[in-house]
Amino acid sequence: MGILILVTGGTFDKEYNELTGELFFKDTHLQEMLKLGRNLAPVKSHTLMMADSLQLTEADRQTIVDYCKAAEETAIIITHGTDTMVETAKKLAEQITHKTIVLTGAMIPYKFGSSDGLFNLGSALAFVQTLPKGVYVAMNGCYFEANNVRKNKQDGIFEAL
Amino acid sequence: MGILILVTGGTFDKEYNELTGELFFKDTHLQEMLKLGRNLAPVKSHTLMMADSLQLTEADRQTIVDYCKAAEETAIIITHGTDTMVETAKKLAEQITHKTIVLTGAMIPYKFGSSDGLFNLGSALAFVQTLPKGVYVAMNGCYFEANNVRKNKQDGIFEAL
Amino acid sequence: MGILILVTGGTFDKEYNELTGELFFKDTHLQEMLKLGRNLAPVKSHTLMMADSLQLTEADRQTIVDYCKAAEETAIIITHGTDTMVETAKKLAEQITHKTIVLTGAMIPYKFGSSDGLFNLGSALAFVQTLPKGVYVAMNGCYFEANNVRKNKQDGIFEAL
Amino acid sequence: MGILILVTGGTFDKEYNELTGELFFKDTHLQEMLKLGRNLAPVKSHTLMMADSLQLTEADRQTIVDYCKAAEETAIIITHGTDTMVETAKKLAEQITHKTIVLTGAMIPYKFGSSDGLFNLGSALAFVQTLPKGVYVAMNGCYFEANNVRKNKQDGIFEAL
Repeated sequence: MGILILVTGGTFDKEYNELTGELFFKDTHLQEMLKLGRNLAPVKSHTLMMADSLQLTEADRQTIVDYCKAAEETAIIITHGTDTMVETAKKLAEQITHKTIVLTGAMIPYKFGSSDGLFNLGSALAFVQTLPKGVYVAMNGCYFEANNVRKNKQDGIFEAL
Repeated sequence: MGILILVTGGTFDKEYNELTGELFFKDTHLQEMLKLGRNLAPVKSHTLMMADSLQLTEADRQTIVDYCKAAEETAIIITHGTDTMVETAKKLAEQITHKTIVLTGAMIPYKFGSSDGLFNLGSALAFVQTLPKGVYVAMNGCYFEANNVRKNKQDGIFEAL
Repeated sequence: MGILILVTGGTFDKEYNELTGELFFKDTHLQEMLKLGRNLAPVKSHTLMMADSLQLTEADRQTIVDYCKAAEETAIIITHGTDTMVETAKKLAEQITHKTIVLTGAMIPYKFGSSDGLFNLGSALAFVQTLPKGVYVAMNGCYFEANNVRKNKQDGIFEAL
Repeated sequence: MGILILVTGGTFDKEYNELTGELFFKDTHLQEMLKLGRNLAPVKSHTLMMADSLQLTEADRQTIVDYCKAAEETAIIITHGTDTMVETAKKLAEQITHKTIVLTGAMIPYKFGSSDGLFNLGSALAFVQTLPKGVYVAMNGCYFEANNVRKNKQDGIFEAL
């Protein structure tokens, strides 16, 4: 059984709209990133939504949970905006216990030269293959259990409680 | 206890010499890559050698083994040229059983825009934190035990035997 | 006598603020770009302002004109936001006739991998060394006289009237 | 009448062969670079050869001269390896006087993140549109007449005699 990568948006996938000068979502860069990393782990991906995580409603989060529940895969990566990644992780942890789910994202859009996205995707792919059942956030080269993590918005990092 | 990253060279760290038009080694890009990935996992690094892995002698490999043995860390990443990464992994596995050692590298130099290096480093950092004691190769988003991996030189990928 | 490069901001120099997710100005990337291009043309640079060109007032434009007038150099490049680059060019052309002034910028921030900034800077440096006295916009590999150019905001390109 | 860009190879277009670890030529990156620069100057391109300029014979150089002579365009850019760019420029200058020909190249392959190629292409495109009839080398943000330039191989720069 392979790994499911569920795309939900976030900084990871933001692009620069040269006509308006604003950041926006077009398509996910996931396939391009997997190719760059020469990934050969058995991966299937699905774009569930392309949203700024500050805009996600509880209904959106439930949609994510439901999709993970229904998926046949037991190893799932979710690319997600960092601002509410912890909230989604907690909701997943409340409702799903028999799968390994790893949420990851980026502080800088992949299309920016200085993005942490490729590094994070590499670590998420490794964590999802090796961690026991549970819901985790993978950022900053570390993994955190869903109930023991917060985003430190002042420093732009994730840390244990 | 933190993670030791042992630098031994390889494509990972090759640079372009604009005066001669050849690839060469200067310094490792490891710190720059860890910074780009916003790594916060507790990491200590040491440059043991800067070598093309085709040039490594058995004495060089023993130097690597000895350094890993003597290190106080039990989680060790080795950046290594891909051509003889498997040989070094096997030698490590013969002599060290009580540590988690992950070898990784890149098919394309980090300084090339299209490098797989950052992805591989992210995955190696995750694997070294989660895999049981043993020696592994982490490439292509996958991990392989030292005695069950080869480099497929025709396709430029790593695969299980 | 060398070339003066006057920095006024624009997309060229925008960066991504990873804490707020917004684009902002910090320092200009001009020196980094000149170094990347291995520029040896005699250049002196000065940051006059760091502004989104939509925010520029007529007083700001006059400040730019005054600085160009007072400068001892007769070859001047101005990096400028694209949205009102033409307005500033026209104002310069009204008041300065004895210098070669070339305005350039970028549609995509330099720090984005896909920026046109380095290409534009290379062309502006060449144009300023070769065009007769006058005020020009250098974008899209072309040059336009200040009174014969507009930004086509729908296509994000510059074109002659 | 538009601009002809004649591709002859050089560092500009070298790529990294991940199977052999060597630099080699595949296709030119010219179209990709023109697109990145959002070039709208009327350009037609032709790949005449893909050669390391140290390998060019006098017959190869004559082929380049003949192609330029026969071309209907009077504005021609030649992308060329830097090592013998000056020799080709001199040969062109001996035989062609009624066209503006600009040779350019790169010290670092375009595919390397740190290439000067895009900057040089931007400057060459500007110089070819503005310089009088003659043969020139455009490197380091400067232009040099064919008979007044040498490559300083120690510093990796072009300079007037």
